[in-house]
Amino acid sequence: MDNIELQKFEEASEMLKRVLHHTELDLSSTFSKICDAKVYLKCENRQKTGSFKIRGATYKIMSMVARGEKVPVVASSAGNHAQGVAYAASLAGIPATIVMPAHAPIAKVQATEGYGAKVVLHGDFYDDAYRKAVEICDQEGAKFLHPYNDIEVITGQGTLGLEILEDLPTADVIVVPAGGGGLLAGISCAVKQVNPRVRVIGVQAEGADAIARSFRSKKLEKSDTVSTIADGIAVKEPGDITVELINRYADDVVTVSDSDIASSILMLMERCKMIVEPAGAASVAAVLSKKIDVRGKKVVCVLSGGNMDVSFVQGIIERGLVARHRRVKLTVTLIDKPGSLEKLLHVIAESGANILSIQHDKFSTDLNPNEINVNIACEVGGKEHSKQLAALLVEKGYRIAFN
Amino acid sequence: MDNIELQKFEEASEMLKRVLHHTELDLSSTFSKICDAKVYLKCENRQKTGSFKIRGATYKIMSMVARGEKVPVVASSAGNHAQGVAYAASLAGIPATIVMPAHAPIAKVQATEGYGAKVVLHGDFYDDAYRKAVEICDQEGAKFLHPYNDIEVITGQGTLGLEILEDLPTADVIVVPAGGGGLLAGISCAVKQVNPRVRVIGVQAEGADAIARSFRSKKLEKSDTVSTIADGIAVKEPGDITVELINRYADDVVTVSDSDIASSILMLMERCKMIVEPAGAASVAAVLSKKIDVRGKKVVCVLSGGNMDVSFVQGIIERGLVARHRRVKLTVTLIDKPGSLEKLLHVIAESGANILSIQHDKFSTDLNPNEINVNIACEVGGKEHSKQLAALLVEKGYRIAFN
Repeated sequence: MDNIELQKFEEASEMLKRVLHHTELDLSSTFSKICDAKVYLKCENRQKTGSFKIRGATYKIMSMVARGEKVPVVASSAGNHAQGVAYAASLAGIPATIVMPAHAPIAKVQATEGYGAKVVLHGDFYDDAYRKAVEICDQEGAKFLHPYNDIEVITGQGTLGLEILEDLPTADVIVVPAGGGGLLAGISCAVKQVNPRVRVIGVQAEGADAIARSFRSKKLEKSDTVSTIADGIAVKEPGDITVELINRYADDVVTVSDSDIASSILMLMERCKMIVEPAGAASVAAVLSKKIDVRGKKVVCVLSGGNMDVSFVQGIIERGLVARHRRVKLTVTLIDKPGSLEKLLHVIAESGANILSIQHDKFSTDLNPNEINVNIACEVGGKEHSKQLAALLVEKGYRIAFN
Repeated sequence: MDNIELQKFEEASEMLKRVLHHTELDLSSTFSKICDAKVYLKCENRQKTGSFKIRGATYKIMSMVARGEKVPVVASSAGNHAQGVAYAASLAGIPATIVMPAHAPIAKVQATEGYGAKVVLHGDFYDDAYRKAVEICDQEGAKFLHPYNDIEVITGQGTLGLEILEDLPTADVIVVPAGGGGLLAGISCAVKQVNPRVRVIGVQAEGADAIARSFRSKKLEKSDTVSTIADGIAVKEPGDITVELINRYADDVVTVSDSDIASSILMLMERCKMIVEPAGAASVAAVLSKKIDVRGKKVVCVLSGGNMDVSFVQGIIERGLVARHRRVKLTVTLIDKPGSLEKLLHVIAESGANILSIQHDKFSTDLNPNEINVNIACEVGGKEHSKQLAALLVEKGYRIAFN
């Protein structure tokens, strides 16, 4: 049975301390108030390369070099592992090749190349990229770096747990996002050896819950398909090593919905002024959605990463604005003659709503020949304001329907 | 001539230390590389209430209370000053009334009420709110708190300068956003007394540059109108006290464009994982746009605040995506018959572009009777990808035009 001794974590911490950030542990008064607890955020989204993955990658490569195994490294990933390996390899002065699926976002490719790695685009899916990576290893005598199912990688990730205990020895609960399980295995294994009183709880997305199921069945479970906005933890097959460690050391593994994740991302932006990627916000989502009982406790939510495309951020905001009734769509039936629309817009302007789009629709079957429907999207202050707008339109004699 | 002795700043620091955050000073490797300098970010966007304004408000109110002047306070602001005063008053246990223009964003109203203040909505513009605030003071024997032209407020803001020197005594340049001038006056006055070698440089928006002009003319200049996305520094009339201190202590005051500010906000989100409001990002914009020569130096950019509405964030992202050619709009002329659009969409899908919107247009005068124009907005990987898309469409025989 695999295990990692505390001393190994300590050695890794010593090594990593010299090249990585000791990221801040922030007490969030907003979340503390909401949860009736002391909620701390471990800001690993602000780690070098934007995620914790750099810890495992760096410790792995440093250990290889220390053993005299100074060979090129290869990884297959379109995500944080890619950037972690690229950065860590350049620190150690060894060549790195990262294989990504052909459709990988150009920003990820550029970021990885920016850290000095060679990027190879291959195939449609992760599996294709993986096979290509193994092929390159065979051809070039390079070493394949697994993103999570590797004792040294897990050791590197576990240093995050020691950092938390260093900054907050009295922590009661540590909440950790889990996909492949490297971070959860490392943190739980390290923390429990230092202080078994501290509860370590994993969080998965509902649509990618293999570790949660493995935790309950006490054996390695896989998912045939995964579906979640949290790409960083959308893993079909967790590792046998990670699951074994998690099943031994973690206290629980819970799941959260994509909608809870999205609303947590928005709150982290608005209240904490921070960009956290979906996988990283899962820990906050678990606490805010009360999947974990933290009342009266000191709880640390690990924000495991911050890498997400700004166009995705836009989608999250759009969704949040709709959920908060800041966006309203309505259809107004007008008499189809010059000046009708102008009069309607005057009423809307009067109400203080800001128009985002207008579309004419002559094709509805319920229209009289002299009528036309206008579909309008507006920005309003909230539910109350949208009710006021509706009341005003009705008062002015308009036939309206909300969409 | 007004002055503030160093000892006063030190007293203020002692007082504020107990109730506010000592915000972090982060070395940004991204900006350092771009600027060939060591660029540090003073993260006052993560201060309580989301901006530095809480410093001045708290020191002002604590000083009043210490003098036995424990009276209700009133402020007129729809911005960070409102939240600062509300929070500071609640800390001191005295009532606060904040007057905002009637159309103030509901989020700002709620945030201010959330800190325990009474919010009065009045008038269309800031001036109306200001007059109402003065009226309330007269009626209720309350004290009006000016957002910047007040020696004690300026002293509070200046504590930020001492914090920077405490964390980085070897700083060469400190870059400070300026609107009314409270923060710049405070920081320059405090820092120059500690270490005259450190250069303190103010940054204003091009469309609200009264302090920059005052600095050059050596007298108090005003603006008749202001126009900038940086609402936090969109001030027509800086203070006579602030301008006097700035003219004496600051080394320079430069201006930046809204477009530089917007692109800095986006970079702060993407690279530093932080939400910074436009006024707060002005300091970074000044350095990135080379308005300040920082090569080889240690430069601190003050991120003065992080409060902005998420729908504004959305606009910033949209603008950034267009600037980076991640959004492309094109018009394709089709034969108006069943199946035409489907064929076109097949070609676009093949190129890997993601369609955002489609609009039919039959009204163009340059169309043959059997033709129709389709306006399409797509998400693409960048300039190269949009060129590939165009080439593919032309190759397939489509008549296209980019918008």
